[in-house]
Amino acid sequence: MSEFNLEQFPISSEDKKRLDALHDALTEKSEKLLGYPSNLIYNYSDLYRFFAFSINNIGDPFKESLYGINTRAFEYEVISFFAKLYHASKDNYWGYVTNGGTEGNMYGLYLARESLPKGIIYFSQDAHYGVIKLARVLGISSITVKSQKNGEIDYEDLEKNIKTHQEPPIILATISTTLRGATDRVEKIVDILHRNAIEEFYIHCDAALGGMILPFVDHAPIFDFRMPIGSISVSGHKMIGSPIPCGIVIAYKENVDRVQRHIEFLDIHDTTLSGSRNGHSVLFLWYAIQRFGIQGFQKMIASCLDITKYAVERLKEISWDAYAQDFSITVVMKRPSEKLAKKWQLAVEKDIAHLLIMPHVSKKQIDAFIEDLKQERLPLEISEP
Amino acid sequence: MSEFNLEQFPISSEDKKRLDALHDALTEKSEKLLGYPSNLIYNYSDLYRFFAFSINNIGDPFKESLYGINTRAFEYEVISFFAKLYHASKDNYWGYVTNGGTEGNMYGLYLARESLPKGIIYFSQDAHYGVIKLARVLGISSITVKSQKNGEIDYEDLEKNIKTHQEPPIILATISTTLRGATDRVEKIVDILHRNAIEEFYIHCDAALGGMILPFVDHAPIFDFRMPIGSISVSGHKMIGSPIPCGIVIAYKENVDRVQRHIEFLDIHDTTLSGSRNGHSVLFLWYAIQRFGIQGFQKMIASCLDITKYAVERLKEISWDAYAQDFSITVVMKRPSEKLAKKWQLAVEKDIAHLLIMPHVSKKQIDAFIEDLKQERLPLEISEP
Repeated sequence: MSEFNLEQFPISSEDKKRLDALHDALTEKSEKLLGYPSNLIYNYSDLYRFFAFSINNIGDPFKESLYGINTRAFEYEVISFFAKLYHASKDNYWGYVTNGGTEGNMYGLYLARESLPKGIIYFSQDAHYGVIKLARVLGISSITVKSQKNGEIDYEDLEKNIKTHQEPPIILATISTTLRGATDRVEKIVDILHRNAIEEFYIHCDAALGGMILPFVDHAPIFDFRMPIGSISVSGHKMIGSPIPCGIVIAYKENVDRVQRHIEFLDIHDTTLSGSRNGHSVLFLWYAIQRFGIQGFQKMIASCLDITKYAVERLKEISWDAYAQDFSITVVMKRPSEKLAKKWQLAVEKDIAHLLIMPHVSKKQIDAFIEDLKQERLPLEISEP
Repeated sequence: MSEFNLEQFPISSEDKKRLDALHDALTEKSEKLLGYPSNLIYNYSDLYRFFAFSINNIGDPFKESLYGINTRAFEYEVISFFAKLYHASKDNYWGYVTNGGTEGNMYGLYLARESLPKGIIYFSQDAHYGVIKLARVLGISSITVKSQKNGEIDYEDLEKNIKTHQEPPIILATISTTLRGATDRVEKIVDILHRNAIEEFYIHCDAALGGMILPFVDHAPIFDFRMPIGSISVSGHKMIGSPIPCGIVIAYKENVDRVQRHIEFLDIHDTTLSGSRNGHSVLFLWYAIQRFGIQGFQKMIASCLDITKYAVERLKEISWDAYAQDFSITVVMKRPSEKLAKKWQLAVEKDIAHLLIMPHVSKKQIDAFIEDLKQERLPLEISEP
């Protein structure tokens, strides 16, 4: 028992009420979430007891640390699952659990820059908005390539741009774009590089959403280590579902070795971007992987794609413009009113909005949303008969 | 109720056993932690129910977001608490809750680089090992300045280095160094800048540990916005205590405005380094601030400093070289055996080790550790009488 007694400092009843009110508000908001790629169906209550520990996976998950309160063994299993899923070759990959897709993208682009210090990053207009910020933070020149109408990168524009620059290309391919659910085809990007006899290049896949969809669908485009890519970043809180934003990054080991420095002090290898690292997110991901496995994730994705189809059909029934691309759970639709966007928490841009058919979205919710849309179309004032 | 039924995928009893084993191991490791700056005394069980929500504070905590499942209002209060603690002037600061001290340092140095693109970073040999990595990631030239024997930056060497370079200086001051608990004196650094008529400079304070000690001790050195600094990063999981690594960064608003881009898509301001952001850590910090307040933190720090003194005395009693600096809860001591370092989870470097007298460390634990040290000194074989 420490001399410092926690019980001297009770939380006030007023503060308890504020937390209750927050709980109510979050419950309400979680009931109507159609527009963001967060899977809200999970139950991690088995893991709550671990919030009594100051878990810290500081340093390299592939090595040991003197700080014993960690979940590195579980992190290693999570990384191994994804390395296998993405066909990384046995002993030639490295990775860690990140605080989200952005950290994974930053890590991939950092490796790219260290490997090609004069490289230029190319990404499409439809790439995640955070990518421009990352290029700026890392001090890498970037070129925004046109998108096709469906949101996929415009390969002709990419080729034209690559041809007019001497510097080695770093290409960020988006595997399911934020707005339209489009997937840049890595195969076509590689074709461009080969056709132009470019030997020095780095491809990073931002697979925040698609990285947990495409591997579970037959005949989906390949974006993984079967292609000559350098790294993949995927989100953990999107399709898998996690209360805390998290993600996974997997990269070629030889690129990682370049940036590694051994720090005797903590007996760790300082390979990650963060210092102290979240070890609870590791448990969420591990728990989900153990409960679902490949077959469970297949069922999850099949269910989402099924309801995606249902949502598009229902929207078309009421003549509301909408579509979803192949291998995508993103329903692109004509933008509704601000009021409805707010009620159902839809992301909007210019004249479109989108629905993300995550595992928690039910047909019943789609029906309720359709009813709301129908109501909006009613004339505001009905003239008396 | 979603079509995707979670109950189809139970967790196996084998996996449950693995979690039980992890729980046991973490309990054991948490009982003997003397060498790391993690406060293990807390009880956030009131907050466990919030792990049923996918909280995401994506974007700028000072603005609203369409994603409703967030704790931004609480984050704003946490930031306000620290802004006040660090004497930031009302309406001229900005900040956010980070994933740890490293992210806060990266953010501060990023702002520094954007403000002084040709700047050179200066930090001492005793600065946190992650700083060199950050300079590399951000592509900023860096100069490691000598440390004094106590771990404080060598001001003469700093001045000599600054004088021999034309580029504007970016100075990272460490407020309680990792190894020796030393504090670089911002006042002396500012004197050097003034003496050399340097008008363009940026000072970032890495106050990971000291940022939650010095403000609560009378006559402690000043490192905050009463000085001409640009930003401060402080850890949340260190002195305050949090199961998940986290931190706070506070910066001058005008520097932040420079890097801000408005993203219509999510109706957010993309001012932070991360995209999706942890909203649960915000609740931990908020809860601790509400329960302790300034007076509670004062008592907490006073108790730690008291036990620090006790630990130094007890070590001296057994003639084991040890000291602690003023305003520091770090006991620097002669390195013990690997076995003891492992048992008590001590960070070691060359011939020294250190104890971090965090709020969970009791006099009883110090006594047990002293007993272990004494045992080691006994002759291994006792000759028969």
